[in-house]
Amino acid sequence: MAQQERAIRTRRAILEAAGAVFDEHGYTSTTIAMVLERAEVTKGALYFHFPSKELLAQAVLDEQVPFGTVPEQPCTLQEIIDMTFVVAQRLLTDSLLRGSVRLTVDQATPPGVDHTGPFRQWGERLVVLMERARDKGELLPTVQPRDTVELLVGGFAGIQLMSRALTNRADLAHRISVLWSHILPSIAVPGLLLGLDSRADRGVRILSAVPVA
Amino acid sequence: MAQQERAIRTRRAILEAAGAVFDEHGYTSTTIAMVLERAEVTKGALYFHFPSKELLAQAVLDEQVPFGTVPEQPCTLQEIIDMTFVVAQRLLTDSLLRGSVRLTVDQATPPGVDHTGPFRQWGERLVVLMERARDKGELLPTVQPRDTVELLVGGFAGIQLMSRALTNRADLAHRISVLWSHILPSIAVPGLLLGLDSRADRGVRILSAVPVA
Repeated sequence: MAQQERAIRTRRAILEAAGAVFDEHGYTSTTIAMVLERAEVTKGALYFHFPSKELLAQAVLDEQVPFGTVPEQPCTLQEIIDMTFVVAQRLLTDSLLRGSVRLTVDQATPPGVDHTGPFRQWGERLVVLMERARDKGELLPTVQPRDTVELLVGGFAGIQLMSRALTNRADLAHRISVLWSHILPSIAVPGLLLGLDSRADRGVRILSAVPVA
Repeated sequence: MAQQERAIRTRRAILEAAGAVFDEHGYTSTTIAMVLERAEVTKGALYFHFPSKELLAQAVLDEQVPFGTVPEQPCTLQEIIDMTFVVAQRLLTDSLLRGSVRLTVDQATPPGVDHTGPFRQWGERLVVLMERARDKGELLPTVQPRDTVELLVGGFAGIQLMSRALTNRADLAHRISVLWSHILPSIAVPGLLLGLDSRADRGVRILSAVPVA
């Protein structure tokens, strides 16, 4: 048991180190040696968990969507809003998430790594929520859940990268708030609009209220 | 005169070759030798126009915003819409534009190259148009031109990269149309909405009607 726990911790330490290095250097320029140095684990431990750089990158990519975990809300559209603010906030503090996002949006396709996975995974997860919101009567009848979701995923990807390029993501929460102020009137039923919270500090408030995952 | 014209053509041939190589390989992996081979010009000609890889990348970045040139419209908001569809359409056919966009959105910051320039240049150009649209009474009074413009620039950046990753940009025009269908009701005065054209084939129609720049 103690041994298994140690293995889980070692795996996590490697993923976090790898995320940081991928974030700083990108896939091509990253070497296993750089990750080893950052993670402070043995070469044997690293290769036990991740036999290649490709598998390490894939694991970093696979960790992305769980960062969108938020407390359930009576209003499902609010839950979708919350996911965007929580991911935005976590991008400021979590280098594993940052590395995972860089692998997703950089055009370099690592051979043998599916860097488009997160686009699809966010899409699947959000479509389930958006259809639930629709079934609960939260959405205007004109909404096509798949179209709206793909707009949110693509828009978020670009907004965060523009914010990173211009302000090192200092204004990301404001930009996400602007995104919602433009989109919500086109998707939410009017009766819901005033009650939805898409202010820029939404992510900070959620994360200070719940134990961080 | 003939000599000057030849120099302009050579410079353009180099930029187009560089765009294609940057698009395929990214900044770090691109070498001057790769551009030389693609451009079919002499080493001397290349170094005459662009003494370093940094200056070549900067020139490719500087070429980006002119790709948004569109015919003037009576409605300025329509002109803004047109720019997005024309850039989307040109991304399908123009490797200089594709390379320029890749240099902008890839996280790798080439030392000595300002790859955030296009974000700012699109912003400046669109703010002028958005303020003109506001002054002409096309926008709802709630619109903050700068916020809306930065949402459009960041959103476009992400939407095109998601489209590139998933469908090699085959569905980009559809995605841009979805972006506008969500945003226009929040920014345009109601009387204008029905007359605005944001259908997916808008870019194709504009480019087939005017001489290509």
